[in-house]
Amino acid sequence: MARPTQKRSRKAGLPPGTPVHIGERKSETTRLMLLHYDEREAVEKRIEDVEECQTFRDRPGVTWINVAGMHDVARLERLGKTLGLHPLVIEDIFSTDQRPKTENYGEYLYIVLKALGNGGGEEIATEQISLILGRNFVVSFLESDSGLFNGVKDRLLKNPAHYVKSGADYLAYALMDTVVDNYFVIFERLGDRIEALQEALIARPEPENLRSLNALKREILYLRKSVWPLREVVSALQRGDSPLVQKGTGLYLRDLYDHTIHVIDTIETYRDMLSGMMDIYLSSLSIRLNEVMKVLTIIATIFMPLSFIVGIYGMNFRYMPELGWRWGYPLVLVVMAAIAGAMLMYFRRKKWI
Amino acid sequence: MARPTQKRSRKAGLPPGTPVHIGERKSETTRLMLLHYDEREAVEKRIEDVEECQTFRDRPGVTWINVAGMHDVARLERLGKTLGLHPLVIEDIFSTDQRPKTENYGEYLYIVLKALGNGGGEEIATEQISLILGRNFVVSFLESDSGLFNGVKDRLLKNPAHYVKSGADYLAYALMDTVVDNYFVIFERLGDRIEALQEALIARPEPENLRSLNALKREILYLRKSVWPLREVVSALQRGDSPLVQKGTGLYLRDLYDHTIHVIDTIETYRDMLSGMMDIYLSSLSIRLNEVMKVLTIIATIFMPLSFIVGIYGMNFRYMPELGWRWGYPLVLVVMAAIAGAMLMYFRRKKWI
Amino acid sequence: MARPTQKRSRKAGLPPGTPVHIGERKSETTRLMLLHYDEREAVEKRIEDVEECQTFRDRPGVTWINVAGMHDVARLERLGKTLGLHPLVIEDIFSTDQRPKTENYGEYLYIVLKALGNGGGEEIATEQISLILGRNFVVSFLESDSGLFNGVKDRLLKNPAHYVKSGADYLAYALMDTVVDNYFVIFERLGDRIEALQEALIARPEPENLRSLNALKREILYLRKSVWPLREVVSALQRGDSPLVQKGTGLYLRDLYDHTIHVIDTIETYRDMLSGMMDIYLSSLSIRLNEVMKVLTIIATIFMPLSFIVGIYGMNFRYMPELGWRWGYPLVLVVMAAIAGAMLMYFRRKKWI
Amino acid sequence: MARPTQKRSRKAGLPPGTPVHIGERKSETTRLMLLHYDEREAVEKRIEDVEECQTFRDRPGVTWINVAGMHDVARLERLGKTLGLHPLVIEDIFSTDQRPKTENYGEYLYIVLKALGNGGGEEIATEQISLILGRNFVVSFLESDSGLFNGVKDRLLKNPAHYVKSGADYLAYALMDTVVDNYFVIFERLGDRIEALQEALIARPEPENLRSLNALKREILYLRKSVWPLREVVSALQRGDSPLVQKGTGLYLRDLYDHTIHVIDTIETYRDMLSGMMDIYLSSLSIRLNEVMKVLTIIATIFMPLSFIVGIYGMNFRYMPELGWRWGYPLVLVVMAAIAGAMLMYFRRKKWI
Amino acid sequence: MARPTQKRSRKAGLPPGTPVHIGERKSETTRLMLLHYDEREAVEKRIEDVEECQTFRDRPGVTWINVAGMHDVARLERLGKTLGLHPLVIEDIFSTDQRPKTENYGEYLYIVLKALGNGGGEEIATEQISLILGRNFVVSFLESDSGLFNGVKDRLLKNPAHYVKSGADYLAYALMDTVVDNYFVIFERLGDRIEALQEALIARPEPENLRSLNALKREILYLRKSVWPLREVVSALQRGDSPLVQKGTGLYLRDLYDHTIHVIDTIETYRDMLSGMMDIYLSSLSIRLNEVMKVLTIIATIFMPLSFIVGIYGMNFRYMPELGWRWGYPLVLVVMAAIAGAMLMYFRRKKWI
Repeated sequence: MARPTQKRSRKAGLPPGTPVHIGERKSETTRLMLLHYDEREAVEKRIEDVEECQTFRDRPGVTWINVAGMHDVARLERLGKTLGLHPLVIEDIFSTDQRPKTENYGEYLYIVLKALGNGGGEEIATEQISLILGRNFVVSFLESDSGLFNGVKDRLLKNPAHYVKSGADYLAYALMDTVVDNYFVIFERLGDRIEALQEALIARPEPENLRSLNALKREILYLRKSVWPLREVVSALQRGDSPLVQKGTGLYLRDLYDHTIHVIDTIETYRDMLSGMMDIYLSSLSIRLNEVMKVLTIIATIFMPLSFIVGIYGMNFRYMPELGWRWGYPLVLVVMAAIAGAMLMYFRRKKWI
Repeated sequence: MARPTQKRSRKAGLPPGTPVHIGERKSETTRLMLLHYDEREAVEKRIEDVEECQTFRDRPGVTWINVAGMHDVARLERLGKTLGLHPLVIEDIFSTDQRPKTENYGEYLYIVLKALGNGGGEEIATEQISLILGRNFVVSFLESDSGLFNGVKDRLLKNPAHYVKSGADYLAYALMDTVVDNYFVIFERLGDRIEALQEALIARPEPENLRSLNALKREILYLRKSVWPLREVVSALQRGDSPLVQKGTGLYLRDLYDHTIHVIDTIETYRDMLSGMMDIYLSSLSIRLNEVMKVLTIIATIFMPLSFIVGIYGMNFRYMPELGWRWGYPLVLVVMAAIAGAMLMYFRRKKWI
Repeated sequence: MARPTQKRSRKAGLPPGTPVHIGERKSETTRLMLLHYDEREAVEKRIEDVEECQTFRDRPGVTWINVAGMHDVARLERLGKTLGLHPLVIEDIFSTDQRPKTENYGEYLYIVLKALGNGGGEEIATEQISLILGRNFVVSFLESDSGLFNGVKDRLLKNPAHYVKSGADYLAYALMDTVVDNYFVIFERLGDRIEALQEALIARPEPENLRSLNALKREILYLRKSVWPLREVVSALQRGDSPLVQKGTGLYLRDLYDHTIHVIDTIETYRDMLSGMMDIYLSSLSIRLNEVMKVLTIIATIFMPLSFIVGIYGMNFRYMPELGWRWGYPLVLVVMAAIAGAMLMYFRRKKWI
Repeated sequence: MARPTQKRSRKAGLPPGTPVHIGERKSETTRLMLLHYDEREAVEKRIEDVEECQTFRDRPGVTWINVAGMHDVARLERLGKTLGLHPLVIEDIFSTDQRPKTENYGEYLYIVLKALGNGGGEEIATEQISLILGRNFVVSFLESDSGLFNGVKDRLLKNPAHYVKSGADYLAYALMDTVVDNYFVIFERLGDRIEALQEALIARPEPENLRSLNALKREILYLRKSVWPLREVVSALQRGDSPLVQKGTGLYLRDLYDHTIHVIDTIETYRDMLSGMMDIYLSSLSIRLNEVMKVLTIIATIFMPLSFIVGIYGMNFRYMPELGWRWGYPLVLVVMAAIAGAMLMYFRRKKWI
Repeated sequence: MARPTQKRSRKAGLPPGTPVHIGERKSETTRLMLLHYDEREAVEKRIEDVEECQTFRDRPGVTWINVAGMHDVARLERLGKTLGLHPLVIEDIFSTDQRPKTENYGEYLYIVLKALGNGGGEEIATEQISLILGRNFVVSFLESDSGLFNGVKDRLLKNPAHYVKSGADYLAYALMDTVVDNYFVIFERLGDRIEALQEALIARPEPENLRSLNALKREILYLRKSVWPLREVVSALQRGDSPLVQKGTGLYLRDLYDHTIHVIDTIETYRDMLSGMMDIYLSSLSIRLNEVMKVLTIIATIFMPLSFIVGIYGMNFRYMPELGWRWGYPLVLVVMAAIAGAMLMYFRRKKWI
């Protein structure tokens, strides 16, 4: 999980509107897929020359262009110009540290989302998804070629009529729904890690656990920033400010809004759980200190009086009658055993041992 | 109390509008009860074939259909279609991890509530209640066959005229009121557990108590999420945005709103109490450490000087006049007793013993 | 101070609108006082039969009915019906765990307040005050016969003309003002207890203090819930949504609003003070531990080296020249005294003693 | 700094509108100054008989009446009546525990501010300033004769034309600006105290520091309550709801609003700093405990093994070959020195010494 | 980073509208640069006499006057008058402790920003940037001659036509964008410091780290106050309340708004990280104490029983058979070695060593 400003600082000093790919190169290639569908059929096509996209714009039906991989700045900039996008939109598509947002450019809506994924290891990776929703087309930009939208594509290829009927905005909704549904899978795994850590903190207060706790906290902080604005985005789309979003799709967006709230609730719950864990850690440390001190106290309390007694009979006074007794030595041993036993009973009664 | 995302992740990848029963199967059977009442009489009937529901729709009076048990997805989906419900509503009825909400579908209102119950053990179980409020009918969906609404049914059967006069919305109110009233019973028991834990934390700071505290905290967090949105729900109904809610029922909903605020206040109070308990726990640990250290210090402070004295007379110097004294040994014993006594008095003055 | 849900749970299962006296019976009797005043005179009358209240309604002037004691449910229900109150109002008057609120029933306003009192011991007792403000009458319901409104009654009997001129709403204001003014007396005493506890916590960190702190915290939490909504109540009245509140009274209500804000500020200040005290308690415990450990360390640091030295000369080596020295023993004693002195000086320089 | 409710409780039981001087008598005398100014000249006059104020009201130009000292209740009540003030305003002027507020009485605005001052010692004293702003006059009430407004008076006497041109509202602004500017002087000194305390807490965690911290916290809490509402006051004046505030003065009030925000920011910063100091204190205590324990552990770790060794050679076994060695004693001494040295090196490597 | 009130207190007692340079003199000289550009060319000119600025006002094209260095109060006051600025604006330009804000003076907008820079050492320095945006001119005031706007100037000189087309408001946007972009560079470095400190706190809990933590906390607090109001400023400009901001620039301001939110998010993240570090520090102290105590306990637990045993055989009883045994001494040594070994195994099993 990268520091928030890490890449953004590279852009300082450049004029506004300069497209620079901010973020790690998550994919080596940049693949463009064009899918046109109408009442009768859906045709998928791989695109090399961005000018091909032009031709589909005035045909009936809906066109979906999916771009996977962001590093081919020149080609994608050309694509943006072909589609008539504002320079700021093109710049934002490349700046993959955007917050989720939706912007109304009249002719089209620009929507930014964050998809979550497990980037190989334990850490949660985020991927920026940019959507352009026009009257009869949707363009989606993904940072990597992860196949996130394959499920939507398959359903669309099977039943294009259903999708055409609902318009381009329903396709945009389906893509967003896929992104949000995927959150639950990631959160499931995150929940496991949090509970494992909590158990570990109660059992063994080690500094590594502290490091894990801090890492988790930061991840949650970061997820929160990725997800909170989503609520505003979906809410804005649902309110129907733009004629590009039809009334029928509004009901589905309301459902998506519910899911988003659900996601936010979950994050807040995790945050609350993590923020309580530091206290658990501190209390575990304190319990452990208590145990160490009890051992010390028990040992000292038993052996100090005994050492004192044997010290007494180590004195060299000439007149110490006990020293001459026949049973002096065994008697002292018995007395000391009695003292030790009494001590142990006292500690047992105090629940120390 | 299940993790928030536990089941929701099962749905990732499915198209929107697919009804999947999310949640544990709380009842093996799915029982449908239809209760029709008008000015003169109320007739209760058990339903097997969901098409029977159709016939009641255009009769005068009010119809209440109660569904207990959610796992028979196919039958209930058919019921939803018979009643003309939107696919998203049907999907939500099965997704038993909804937040409380109300949605206006014009013809009918869709209301989601959470009922609380004690699921056998100490933990609080939640059950999703879905209500469909139409012009002359109410459909209620319960996850289990717990008989939660039996009280309402009995009163209705006794005095159908009163209920008919107030319309279907009054019946919906009565059902919601039953759910909220039931919260107080559950909270009563929760309050007992919190107070018992607080007493235990002050008395004995054991790690199990810490675990109980964490469990309670999480339960409250979860209850909070179940109850907070209720306020919005009742408030929206009371504001009378829908013509399905009559003015007379509005007064009753205002009353219900008061109760909801009362419930939320109680949860917040519990939350405040629990969040203070970690500090109590830490301070109890600290007090206990203090006590352990006092024991150690008292023992060490008494026996170290005494051991030093007996050590002196254990030295083998040739010229040590005391060793030859007749009363040297008793004198040393007396001196040591005096020192021990002085120490004890010092500790008593310091309130350590 | 009762747990918030304690009595409310008794009502679960009853139909809405059932008047049940929730709360402890604070008064054995239920006394009704009717006071009618106009330009010329004010007449006070004790009432036995609630139907007597009817006759005053159409006379010129203002009528004030004061009810002290809530347990005679049947009689008061009859009174409510005589006055034409909605069943929900009657139910709420008996449910003495209401939050402060105001409800507009067109013909009359229903206002709920909480009066504070010292219920014998240290704990703060709350009493629910219900006010019904009509065009030319005010009805006040008190839980006990505490004489809270005697001051208002005396002033009214002396100068009825002044009160008649300002209308029934001014009387209602005067009653509310009495309740709020009384808060300051209670808070004065509460402030004393908080300061005493703070001093005690710094001086002696005992578990009883922790219990007192928790009790105070809970009391403040409870007071807060009693007083916060008051702000909304007075603000709503002052905004003049109801024609029952005249413009002239609005100025007085603005003043009352200021007092309410003052009360809330005070509660928040107390809350802040209490929430800081747990830290004081923990730090006092830590200071005390420090002191205990210093005693132990001083003792150990002085006597361990000395015991080591006497141990050396307790060894039985054949060839230990010092043992044979004439002044060996006194020399060792002097050396040990010097070591002890040096240690003490070291601790004094470290400010430990 | 007085407890918030301390004096207010004296008023409980009195009818509303009774002027009672709440607060300590900060000045023995009550001085009235009347300053009339127009295009040509400004005339200052000391007033004994409050009726003199009447004559200035219909003359052209602006009149400023400054009242220093609040205890002469009777005379000031007469003054209020002469000026036609509402009884509630007169009552509030005397109740010197008001929160800052502004109230619009149509003919005039009533403004309450809090001036800060150093009341002799370290504590910050507050003084209530009441301003009455009429069409062509300003009346200012101060609790004491501190000369707070002398700067304004001097500037006014030098250049009356400038002040007349801007109207009475500009004079009121100038007085308020003086009060707010003065805050910065007080806060400067408060900042010094806070930083000194922080340094002291890190260096020496003494209970007195804890007491200072608590006192500062309470002062900040109190200042906050004095200053926060000011923002609302200035904002309300600036919004120009009243025709008594002219457009030109609005710009100056916007400036004053900025200063008020600046003041509030400063208080919040101080609050944040203070709330972090308790943690510093606790950590300082913990550091100190660590140090004490290190001393103890070092001493014990060095001398316990040594005492054990000398104990061995103090045993009285008949067959202990070492005891008879010629160099046994020096050898043991050397071994013990080596052990002590090794221990010291170990502690040095662990950075304990 | 200066204390918030440090300089502001110098102004107490001065009449409003007096320009006083508050803040340290960050530049010895005051340089004025005038840059006029139209469709064809851009001309840069250094200005000595402020009256020269006058002539450009009615020419077509846009004029940018950049003032670097604030201490020449007289000259800049004259400049302000030449440009027709309100006295309060001139005062605010010199008061370099303003919060970011925008004020609409009809003819022109007054905008205050805070630029961040590294003032030599580690601390972050802030510089106040004042912008005056008129119909066809922009005036920028910088505290120092840092060349912050050189990038904008260079781009403008290269392509004046582009800038003229977008109007003076676009230039103002470009300047603001430069300031905000620069934040990311500073935050990058701040992030490094925070992470280094976190690592240090976990590894070594030294009081110096505590001091660093406090310093960082205060810096963040201060940055927060510099940046938070910026959001309001950009939002107000973007909303297009003033005709001076054209619709086309609004899109760019929306982009700037996004960046500002990004900056605020980053600060809040840093704040969260820092606020968790005190807990880390306390837990590190606790861990260290645990370690110290373990060493002590291990030593005591091993040597106390051994010392007791050697004490036994140091007793002088006449009848102690073991003392006469041939292998008594070696046997005791073996027993003691066994005891020490058992202890060590016990500690190893408890994971103490």
